Amino acid sequence: MQTIHEAADAIRQKKITPIELVEQCLANIDRWEEHVHAWVFVDRDGALAEAKRLTDELSRGQYRGPLHGIPIGVKDIFDVFDWPTAAGSKLWANSIARQDADVVRQLRQAGCIFLGKTVTTQYASFDPPVTRNPWNLSRTPGGSSSGSAAAVATGMCLGALGSQTGGSITRPASYCGVAGCKPSYGYVSCNGVVPLAPSMDHPGPIAPCVEDLAIMLRAMLDYDHSLFTHDQVRRLQDGCPGEFGRVRGLFQDLADLHVRAMMDEVSAQLRDKGAAIREFTLPPGFSEVLPSHRTVMAAEAAQYHEQRLRHHPQDYQPRIRALLEEGLNCPAPTYGRAKSLQDRLQDEMTANLMWDDWGILLTPATTSAAPDASTTGDPAFNSPWSYTGLPTVSLPVGLSPDGLPLAIQLVGARGKHEWLLAAAAWVEKALGVGPLTPPLPR
Amino acid sequence: MQTIHEAADAIRQKKITPIELVEQCLANIDRWEEHVHAWVFVDRDGALAEAKRLTDELSRGQYRGPLHGIPIGVKDIFDVFDWPTAAGSKLWANSIARQDADVVRQLRQAGCIFLGKTVTTQYASFDPPVTRNPWNLSRTPGGSSSGSAAAVATGMCLGALGSQTGGSITRPASYCGVAGCKPSYGYVSCNGVVPLAPSMDHPGPIAPCVEDLAIMLRAMLDYDHSLFTHDQVRRLQDGCPGEFGRVRGLFQDLADLHVRAMMDEVSAQLRDKGAAIREFTLPPGFSEVLPSHRTVMAAEAAQYHEQRLRHHPQDYQPRIRALLEEGLNCPAPTYGRAKSLQDRLQDEMTANLMWDDWGILLTPATTSAAPDASTTGDPAFNSPWSYTGLPTVSLPVGLSPDGLPLAIQLVGARGKHEWLLAAAAWVEKALGVGPLTPPLPR
Repeated sequence: MQTIHEAADAIRQKKITPIELVEQCLANIDRWEEHVHAWVFVDRDGALAEAKRLTDELSRGQYRGPLHGIPIGVKDIFDVFDWPTAAGSKLWANSIARQDADVVRQLRQAGCIFLGKTVTTQYASFDPPVTRNPWNLSRTPGGSSSGSAAAVATGMCLGALGSQTGGSITRPASYCGVAGCKPSYGYVSCNGVVPLAPSMDHPGPIAPCVEDLAIMLRAMLDYDHSLFTHDQVRRLQDGCPGEFGRVRGLFQDLADLHVRAMMDEVSAQLRDKGAAIREFTLPPGFSEVLPSHRTVMAAEAAQYHEQRLRHHPQDYQPRIRALLEEGLNCPAPTYGRAKSLQDRLQDEMTANLMWDDWGILLTPATTSAAPDASTTGDPAFNSPWSYTGLPTVSLPVGLSPDGLPLAIQLVGARGKHEWLLAAAAWVEKALGVGPLTPPLPR
Repeated sequence: MQTIHEAADAIRQKKITPIELVEQCLANIDRWEEHVHAWVFVDRDGALAEAKRLTDELSRGQYRGPLHGIPIGVKDIFDVFDWPTAAGSKLWANSIARQDADVVRQLRQAGCIFLGKTVTTQYASFDPPVTRNPWNLSRTPGGSSSGSAAAVATGMCLGALGSQTGGSITRPASYCGVAGCKPSYGYVSCNGVVPLAPSMDHPGPIAPCVEDLAIMLRAMLDYDHSLFTHDQVRRLQDGCPGEFGRVRGLFQDLADLHVRAMMDEVSAQLRDKGAAIREFTLPPGFSEVLPSHRTVMAAEAAQYHEQRLRHHPQDYQPRIRALLEEGLNCPAPTYGRAKSLQDRLQDEMTANLMWDDWGILLTPATTSAAPDASTTGDPAFNSPWSYTGLPTVSLPVGLSPDGLPLAIQLVGARGKHEWLLAAAAWVEKALGVGPLTPPLPR
């Protein structure tokens, strides 16, 4: 699999042009898309024209940085100027965006080439999408950033924009065998993004490896651009970050046997490489996280959709509709209590992670490998971090006995993306795992 | 003509309900719309449903303030949730907004009822729209907020959202015989608004009278909600604001004979009521304002439209296309000089206005009464304030010999909306002018 950082090096050294990179991606789309259905649409001509422009810039000596000429996919809830944003709605199929979303504008300025819009579950919720898992076409790619994960996994693009309110970045990235990052809450702008639950919506990158996530995230961050540079992350990945807190509790109880075995093996390997792995005890309120997350998601989604659901009930699939009805029937005090717990756990978890410099937690990324395509899988290991707003990085560590990717999830302290990405890059290197490439279906 | 503040008093005293107010507006739409063509669409059912909800709130004792239940129109460049924003483009006719523009959300929270979208010239530029001037159907209503001004003038709504980059609020409001306010640059959010030239785009209200502008602006301001209250403005309008600076120069040279006579008469009347009118000399750089404004508008509009104009040339009418071509061919240093002058004049003009408390300038609002419908009229008296970002209020003062409204324009210091609105309210009262109502065409 082509990575962003390798492609960036090749572009800088003039071994490849943005035009050739786009052509590679389009060839992979010709190979894969009929099996995987990752795209709402691909704008071949637009992408090639943009690649030409960025290639010309390079030949004039203009270099925008490591995203110069990198072809990416955009989840179909982000506004891209003059492209429709449908968010899985039939009624929004021609709803053309009249501005770029903030994060799209930032990536465009950094030199990204947008190939097209990737499939999202409807309104970024739970109804199974048309997209299939490239490792096994009977399995789900996960949701809601289904197309983004499947497209990166198959080299149809080198990176993709995703978003997470429950487990919508980590879960699809992990099921498809690629890396994902959900940044700290509020650090990446949601302006121009169809909301699900505004107090937990997080745009984030999906990419082949951790270094690529760092490159994309750096262009997307609203506030702390200066906190780390690409070179700093490259350097940090060479030094062991010290101690990891392994989290059990629900992260053990809900994991299947393959995931439990994978976690034991990963922990043993990291210890071998010099990391300390200690047990991390979750604060007492954490047992309420999953129902409280659901309450906040349902109530806030209902606030956005209420009027539209009344006018266009036919434009809502069963699971999002059930979520909205839950929200509409949720008593205000229940929502209020869920918000209070959210505030309290945000503070408590960040305080708990300050043990040495900044602590990093280690959990499995998903409860199992990708299940069949009748669901988008269980977000139970991801929703707690969407709820508490802590940043996460997930990366694939190998294949399950039935040939599906398994992944781990690292969780950092709020705002400390540089430590988290450096730790994740070190883990990726210590485990000796690189991007996993699925075999083309026959 | 029904004013917002009278309707607000009647609602608070339960003499009328929001439902009845909406029904009045819909009846005026039945009477006027076939002549005037002010609306892109009217959402009768949606408005009545919203009026019902806001009437129910009142009967439960909930009162949101003076905009509670006030029916308004929204210029079709502002996003309103689940309504299309076409901005006069055929290709954007079904481009449904997935969020409210900031200012739409603020007005919604303040209790406004949105009746529908009002006609804008294409991309808020200069191509004549389908809308006609209600005072004479062969005349232009002005642009680009054409539908907003014509709809308020005919009682089809009580107030409307407009926007101004050159003269797009003041000109149509004045041609149609209603009041308009262009706030200080940057004080009202442009988020969710189709841009024309971002460094000069100003959303603002169009309404029957100055007090109504104050009510709407208060809900729209991003930063200084606390600067003035409705009651403060009501009190201030009773005390003479002291001194006005009458501006001649281009504001005299470009005015026709009727406008010059009107200005002399207005000045004499204000002197009679105790105001001092002194001559205000424009700073030297001001002679460059009109060409520099055009440069900034062309260059910034071209930045937004460039790519789209290339892909969809057929979706651009002649005048906007000429503007964009001008911008595409504008050398960067020319634009840079125009921006430098803009910065310098912004500071200089605000400094010049600090003569006692905060000074107010007096100019005609337009060069003439509404010309025929083959143009949208001359924005020469308005563009200087869009360029320098100073706030303006315009109000009608009477009819020209051929029965068309004439209006004056007051200009204040940056950010000092409370002084400007109080002065304008005093002038309106001193001149004894109220809202002008056009006769229904036979």
